[in-house]
Amino acid sequence: MMTAAEYIQSLRDLGPRNIYVLGEKIQNPVDHPLIRPSINCCAMTYKLAELPEYQELMTAKSALTGRTINRFCHLHQDTEDLIKKVKMLRLVGNMTGSCFQRCVGMDALNAVWSTTYEMDAKLGTNYHERFRNYVLEWEEKDWTVDGCMTDPKGNRSVGPSEQADPDLFVRVVEKRQDGIVVRGAKMHQTGILNSHEILVMPTQTMRPEDADYAVAFAVPADDPSLIYIYGRQSCDTRKLESTKVDVGNVNYGGQEAVVIFNNTFVPWNRVFMCGEIEFTGMLVERFAGYHRQSYGGCKVGNGDVLIGATAAIADYNGVAKASHVKDKIVEMVHLNETLYACGIACSAEGRKTASGNYLIDMMLANVCKQNVTRFPYEIARLAQDIAGGLVVTMPSDADFNSPEVGEWCRKLMVGDPKYPTEHRQRMLRLIETMTLGAVAVGYLTESLHGAGSPQAQRIMISRLANLEQKKALARRLCGIDPDGLF
Amino acid sequence: MMTAAEYIQSLRDLGPRNIYVLGEKIQNPVDHPLIRPSINCCAMTYKLAELPEYQELMTAKSALTGRTINRFCHLHQDTEDLIKKVKMLRLVGNMTGSCFQRCVGMDALNAVWSTTYEMDAKLGTNYHERFRNYVLEWEEKDWTVDGCMTDPKGNRSVGPSEQADPDLFVRVVEKRQDGIVVRGAKMHQTGILNSHEILVMPTQTMRPEDADYAVAFAVPADDPSLIYIYGRQSCDTRKLESTKVDVGNVNYGGQEAVVIFNNTFVPWNRVFMCGEIEFTGMLVERFAGYHRQSYGGCKVGNGDVLIGATAAIADYNGVAKASHVKDKIVEMVHLNETLYACGIACSAEGRKTASGNYLIDMMLANVCKQNVTRFPYEIARLAQDIAGGLVVTMPSDADFNSPEVGEWCRKLMVGDPKYPTEHRQRMLRLIETMTLGAVAVGYLTESLHGAGSPQAQRIMISRLANLEQKKALARRLCGIDPDGLF
Amino acid sequence: MMTAAEYIQSLRDLGPRNIYVLGEKIQNPVDHPLIRPSINCCAMTYKLAELPEYQELMTAKSALTGRTINRFCHLHQDTEDLIKKVKMLRLVGNMTGSCFQRCVGMDALNAVWSTTYEMDAKLGTNYHERFRNYVLEWEEKDWTVDGCMTDPKGNRSVGPSEQADPDLFVRVVEKRQDGIVVRGAKMHQTGILNSHEILVMPTQTMRPEDADYAVAFAVPADDPSLIYIYGRQSCDTRKLESTKVDVGNVNYGGQEAVVIFNNTFVPWNRVFMCGEIEFTGMLVERFAGYHRQSYGGCKVGNGDVLIGATAAIADYNGVAKASHVKDKIVEMVHLNETLYACGIACSAEGRKTASGNYLIDMMLANVCKQNVTRFPYEIARLAQDIAGGLVVTMPSDADFNSPEVGEWCRKLMVGDPKYPTEHRQRMLRLIETMTLGAVAVGYLTESLHGAGSPQAQRIMISRLANLEQKKALARRLCGIDPDGLF
Amino acid sequence: MMTAAEYIQSLRDLGPRNIYVLGEKIQNPVDHPLIRPSINCCAMTYKLAELPEYQELMTAKSALTGRTINRFCHLHQDTEDLIKKVKMLRLVGNMTGSCFQRCVGMDALNAVWSTTYEMDAKLGTNYHERFRNYVLEWEEKDWTVDGCMTDPKGNRSVGPSEQADPDLFVRVVEKRQDGIVVRGAKMHQTGILNSHEILVMPTQTMRPEDADYAVAFAVPADDPSLIYIYGRQSCDTRKLESTKVDVGNVNYGGQEAVVIFNNTFVPWNRVFMCGEIEFTGMLVERFAGYHRQSYGGCKVGNGDVLIGATAAIADYNGVAKASHVKDKIVEMVHLNETLYACGIACSAEGRKTASGNYLIDMMLANVCKQNVTRFPYEIARLAQDIAGGLVVTMPSDADFNSPEVGEWCRKLMVGDPKYPTEHRQRMLRLIETMTLGAVAVGYLTESLHGAGSPQAQRIMISRLANLEQKKALARRLCGIDPDGLF
Repeated sequence: MMTAAEYIQSLRDLGPRNIYVLGEKIQNPVDHPLIRPSINCCAMTYKLAELPEYQELMTAKSALTGRTINRFCHLHQDTEDLIKKVKMLRLVGNMTGSCFQRCVGMDALNAVWSTTYEMDAKLGTNYHERFRNYVLEWEEKDWTVDGCMTDPKGNRSVGPSEQADPDLFVRVVEKRQDGIVVRGAKMHQTGILNSHEILVMPTQTMRPEDADYAVAFAVPADDPSLIYIYGRQSCDTRKLESTKVDVGNVNYGGQEAVVIFNNTFVPWNRVFMCGEIEFTGMLVERFAGYHRQSYGGCKVGNGDVLIGATAAIADYNGVAKASHVKDKIVEMVHLNETLYACGIACSAEGRKTASGNYLIDMMLANVCKQNVTRFPYEIARLAQDIAGGLVVTMPSDADFNSPEVGEWCRKLMVGDPKYPTEHRQRMLRLIETMTLGAVAVGYLTESLHGAGSPQAQRIMISRLANLEQKKALARRLCGIDPDGLF
Repeated sequence: MMTAAEYIQSLRDLGPRNIYVLGEKIQNPVDHPLIRPSINCCAMTYKLAELPEYQELMTAKSALTGRTINRFCHLHQDTEDLIKKVKMLRLVGNMTGSCFQRCVGMDALNAVWSTTYEMDAKLGTNYHERFRNYVLEWEEKDWTVDGCMTDPKGNRSVGPSEQADPDLFVRVVEKRQDGIVVRGAKMHQTGILNSHEILVMPTQTMRPEDADYAVAFAVPADDPSLIYIYGRQSCDTRKLESTKVDVGNVNYGGQEAVVIFNNTFVPWNRVFMCGEIEFTGMLVERFAGYHRQSYGGCKVGNGDVLIGATAAIADYNGVAKASHVKDKIVEMVHLNETLYACGIACSAEGRKTASGNYLIDMMLANVCKQNVTRFPYEIARLAQDIAGGLVVTMPSDADFNSPEVGEWCRKLMVGDPKYPTEHRQRMLRLIETMTLGAVAVGYLTESLHGAGSPQAQRIMISRLANLEQKKALARRLCGIDPDGLF
Repeated sequence: MMTAAEYIQSLRDLGPRNIYVLGEKIQNPVDHPLIRPSINCCAMTYKLAELPEYQELMTAKSALTGRTINRFCHLHQDTEDLIKKVKMLRLVGNMTGSCFQRCVGMDALNAVWSTTYEMDAKLGTNYHERFRNYVLEWEEKDWTVDGCMTDPKGNRSVGPSEQADPDLFVRVVEKRQDGIVVRGAKMHQTGILNSHEILVMPTQTMRPEDADYAVAFAVPADDPSLIYIYGRQSCDTRKLESTKVDVGNVNYGGQEAVVIFNNTFVPWNRVFMCGEIEFTGMLVERFAGYHRQSYGGCKVGNGDVLIGATAAIADYNGVAKASHVKDKIVEMVHLNETLYACGIACSAEGRKTASGNYLIDMMLANVCKQNVTRFPYEIARLAQDIAGGLVVTMPSDADFNSPEVGEWCRKLMVGDPKYPTEHRQRMLRLIETMTLGAVAVGYLTESLHGAGSPQAQRIMISRLANLEQKKALARRLCGIDPDGLF
Repeated sequence: MMTAAEYIQSLRDLGPRNIYVLGEKIQNPVDHPLIRPSINCCAMTYKLAELPEYQELMTAKSALTGRTINRFCHLHQDTEDLIKKVKMLRLVGNMTGSCFQRCVGMDALNAVWSTTYEMDAKLGTNYHERFRNYVLEWEEKDWTVDGCMTDPKGNRSVGPSEQADPDLFVRVVEKRQDGIVVRGAKMHQTGILNSHEILVMPTQTMRPEDADYAVAFAVPADDPSLIYIYGRQSCDTRKLESTKVDVGNVNYGGQEAVVIFNNTFVPWNRVFMCGEIEFTGMLVERFAGYHRQSYGGCKVGNGDVLIGATAAIADYNGVAKASHVKDKIVEMVHLNETLYACGIACSAEGRKTASGNYLIDMMLANVCKQNVTRFPYEIARLAQDIAGGLVVTMPSDADFNSPEVGEWCRKLMVGDPKYPTEHRQRMLRLIETMTLGAVAVGYLTESLHGAGSPQAQRIMISRLANLEQKKALARRLCGIDPDGLF
């Protein structure tokens, strides 16, 4: 396994990449102040694996080689692995207070693993062996891999092949003897600039006319055909300011980028699906299912931080003993732990796939994510309630440091004088970023849309609800279908 | 194990009991139309254990004897047992559409087991051995046991010994060489008339001045000193009418009664706590914790029935394809499965006690119950929404059978003519009873108050929230307590 | 105006009616214990008009004759009249704790008034003059009139003329020189047995093929062709028991019945629409609009009672000072007053119709009702929370009066001993009936479905939302459509 | 009345002020890119008064002089004035999509007016005459006045005179023959830099020991003793970037600043309270009451914009016809109109004060604001749901304009090709700013805390709830206090 320092070095060692940030092509993403906080997050997944107290959660024994590997590279072998995944994500969420990005690769790993196995079994293809070799290298090199799914999609009311522009979904534009050429783009790529590899999957169930879009493959992140455009976030440019206080979460942050596949060549040994439309649905659902489970860990970890910040600001404001404040914090905890319960439950109810790794319970994973689309918003509202209006009206840290008005700032922004004003200032900034700023992008909006928007979960819940069996229960009890038991 | 038929016979075989129903002393509770539906529910826990397809859930291997026993008599041996308990409760909830009462004994069993063990270890008492002998008989005879906790409590703002009337909490009024004499009453005793035994526990943490109230013991249900007064339920007397259709859930129902201990003698071998105030809190919390877990099974099982009834009435009304109807049913499923997730999660996260049996995760069990105090009400509201106003305005079944207006009723109450009017009539009655009538008592109000009212869970959540650890996370991230990791 | 006593006598003076209750034809509805509480409610609208302190709200000056009339017979002449209507309904809701039924006639009055006027203006018919004469008699005789709209509807997925049975909507079966013959039935007729007259309206917008169903007319309540079948309510038969305590709301109740028009003849002077399909939508929307406003008064009045009962039971339980109890009561008040605000607002924003009377603001009236479909459920849940589990497990009043266990009941059910146990008993029964029993039928389920089910309001809100104007605001602000103002 | 252009010039004409922004003292606030959008908002209140179509709402006839004045300077003369105020605020909210700041002065005007009148009547002071003269000038000069209330407050658990630092609440430090000297600061001053005058009020009910803090007065905004420190907002520095697209709401914004009274002299004719602690509560409650009403207008106006943006983005994304999208937009409208209903209702139920102007209904105004602390958060969540994840991952406008990747951006970010990509880009930025960015500060967080945090409204609701009267209703109905009416 790599250390955190080796991981950061490994990003420096990547070949030149076409990366655009705020309209400029940049040369050194690793030290770019907009990007570095997100690298720190991802590096935390390596760092914690170094620390003995976290190794039970952060590492696992490879099912392929028996060697100790980072759990982010692991094929889940039982429900305990699934539960440990959730706990690991909560832990890293605690340590970064942010999206740490590496889970998308882990979720893609497990989804592609079982899908290629079943695809080969049904169709006689050999994708699973190819993917097995790829996974061996992945584990060995302790890669961060970008699980890459969401296409631009253009007009949501029509499918890939009906779009005015064929490039709005990634597709195979050429099949060659040595491999395929793909073209298109993927949106919202969490942590892609911090990844060594990109593992591409189709974004939805494909119909026969969309066969060219049914493609899964891997490419190295520094493939020269790729173009990256960095996404803006709320308050992003505070990271460019001279002081870090106003950033709130001073060292960590999330990352989303667009990646463009500008006629990218992929050799056959890295192609894991190519036209098998009947397996697109399975792959998408499994990846989404794993990722919906993930949110029952990482967002809960972030929620812990926001609850802690709220409890701290209640202290600093001198209101920690007010009954309504205590009750609101209980509500925040209750909502956060409900999300955790869903993450744990879909793991505990996981089952073995034909390929041997474990899949979460799909109903409960979708229920988990559906709750994640709601509760963090209420938790954030309650945090702002207790924080007070100053969370959005406080002068800048530059004012706090001003020779002319700095003293006034420190004098007036005091709360309970037991605590330094600077602590209050920093804690308010943390709450600001988690409810409105850069962290809110991940904690709120991506809680809505990551791993599929709310309606996507509702469709799955509807499909899995087994209403016919439930109707039969009701018919029996009201006497329409008596069974004579009693 | 007893068969369901043997169980019902065993209730007939009990000695004479002082049972009052609607102001009258009754002689034959087993065939009383107000009581029998609740006996059918409890009998279902025996019946399902007879059926091969349910034996994995309904039975277990005794940890004491290795024999196969009904899971309702079982000491949970691992997290899988805890999970199976939840699934068993969901199953019985499905089959009865009602509260089936037997879980309170199971929850008391597991709580008293571990508490007496730790009490003996600390204080040198020998309660655990006594209780072990009691449990052996319990398993052997396949008893239904009433777990008996809630005292009348009188004025909630003062404690047991400060009440104007000392009998408002059960207490020891005499200690004799051969045993103790207890006096007082317990309220809301679910299924007590369907039980062979009553296992009494204190209702709250006791203070030194309340030592006489720190008492746990078992008595046979037909002890002649006991007086039972049956509780009224919404729509209870429909069960006395000549037709069963208007009952809604035609064969099953819940049961709550007051039991009075009118100077009841208990021999020492059936006394499991007597004055050890420092263990009252543990006993109450563990019983409550197990019982809060239970609600993540039984109420989910009832919820399945209500969802099924709602889906069926949507068919009968001809609205099953309306998008808002489908969406509301998805919401009902989502809320119901969230409760289930909480039940599963607190089980999966259970841990071994010193005594060897398994305890649920207390935070998640409290979170589970807190959600149960909310979601069934919303599920019920949505059920009524889809059912339509007829659920509360439909003529009686006597009208449907009237020679004068019966034909009109059947003609006018038709929905989609594909379905018989009688099916619509019955299904509406089922929804009525689950949202307003006798079943609503259990599905709604007892979801609020059973296993402790909402505030009780909030106090536990607050106590378990570990806010100091969460504050430390926040302080680290906003730079108050930097740790140099990044 | 009639006194309350005269009103009750006037019901006795009606001719013989075909009324079926619980399968039996009854002779004396006025003194029937299932019906009388609902008559008391309606009589309250007469009684309060007798009392000087309420005359400003309860009476009005007729716009037709200048005489003082009961406001329930009044054509609203300005927004102050609309506001006074809401306040009157809240008052009567306070005094009855129940649905008092007379508003449906008032709402039909105002809707038919303006619709017939506009119909005549457009089509040259003379319905308005006929209706004017009818209203003069109505005001003069101080009638209670049943506003009669909802048809059985059968299969909701097809229209009136497509039903398998043509009688599932009221229709004209014969047009004669002297009048029309109608056939069909109306469901959920609130207070119809307490009414002197029945004013029938179509239930939905009719299409050309449904012209026979576009019919509005009035018939006397004792027309011999009519058949009434009384609807069951939760806990209805408690009213037949010897004690009134278990009824909860001891003197008052609601009423819903089916009315069958078994080839009823209506003379032309009482026909107010006959085939004018293009005005069916207007009539339905206006009646529904007025009635959706009504719920911002009557249900608020009932809510006051439930809040009062909850505050009282908090006293009796000895928990009135607990911060969570106080906070829950604040929440109940907040929700209840939000409903009132909606009732007031749609009144204050009313506008004059072409016919001269005032119509509520349709958007706000629909918003009002939409909230009424939600908040009473949460208010009821909070009431049960504070009441405690005894609300559903308390022994019957017969037990309280039993020579054998009555003393036990009174001893054990005590709360704070400052208050008699009987007060606690009665207050719990009131909360029971308002949240599960006969009053809950009106306070909860009819809050969902009365004046149209939730989806009906959403369709209206959607239609009135003026999204195009809102989109234009957004386009201007983000710079798509700059206007140069700034 | 001033034109908008004259208003902006009048700000330039103010004397030099000590204004600090992001740590720097600035010279030209009017043209400062961080400040100008907020000036545009305030100028809109002048501009709309110029336009004939808005004059009925935007202007009023002065009760003091009979002249036409801007309604923002008006003493409300009847409930129609109160209603028009709400409509005016909704209108300006529509036109600015932002907080436009001028209402705080109007609310202070009306509160100080009636309070000084009652103070003089009780205490024989002559504050009202002084204030009348001040108001005449205010109307005449068409001032924007900052209603200035909230003190820093320091430790919330102790009062003004118990703070470690006496300057944490504004107080009188010297009384001279010609006036008083005040010291302290006020926080969260909305629009203060766009104001001509500052009207200071105490922030809470004062106790005898806090008499020096019971002070109300007016000072010109360019008094040289004043120091202003501008508050940071989420995404504030986007306004400093070269392109305006990423700002979202391109021309408008809110403003909050700290103002420091560094030993400010106030002549007696501008002092409106000085030590009369018994009237501090009245003044605070009335100002808060008016301001809680205001939120039922301005935030509704902003809500319209967000709903419009959401409906537009649904078009652009090609999902406008999906039933779940339509339903969510209905929900947004419903919530928004509920807020409006509360604003209208507390206005319609206003009453005349002893001084002659009209006061809103206090219960309903508090209910209004309480809802405002909740619903905009849900509206914002739904907006993000429909917008899709791109709202937080879209590249910067600089990328859209980049010669290297601009074409890719425009190609890939297309939705339904009927609409230009730029429209989608701009609309997403508008939704971003309203839910996470600078506008969210006002639309969300200030909806929580402006005019008092949620708990402040709950305390008022509790005080006004009249629970004793409600208990009496309940006691009558359950038969504890029968009145023999029925």
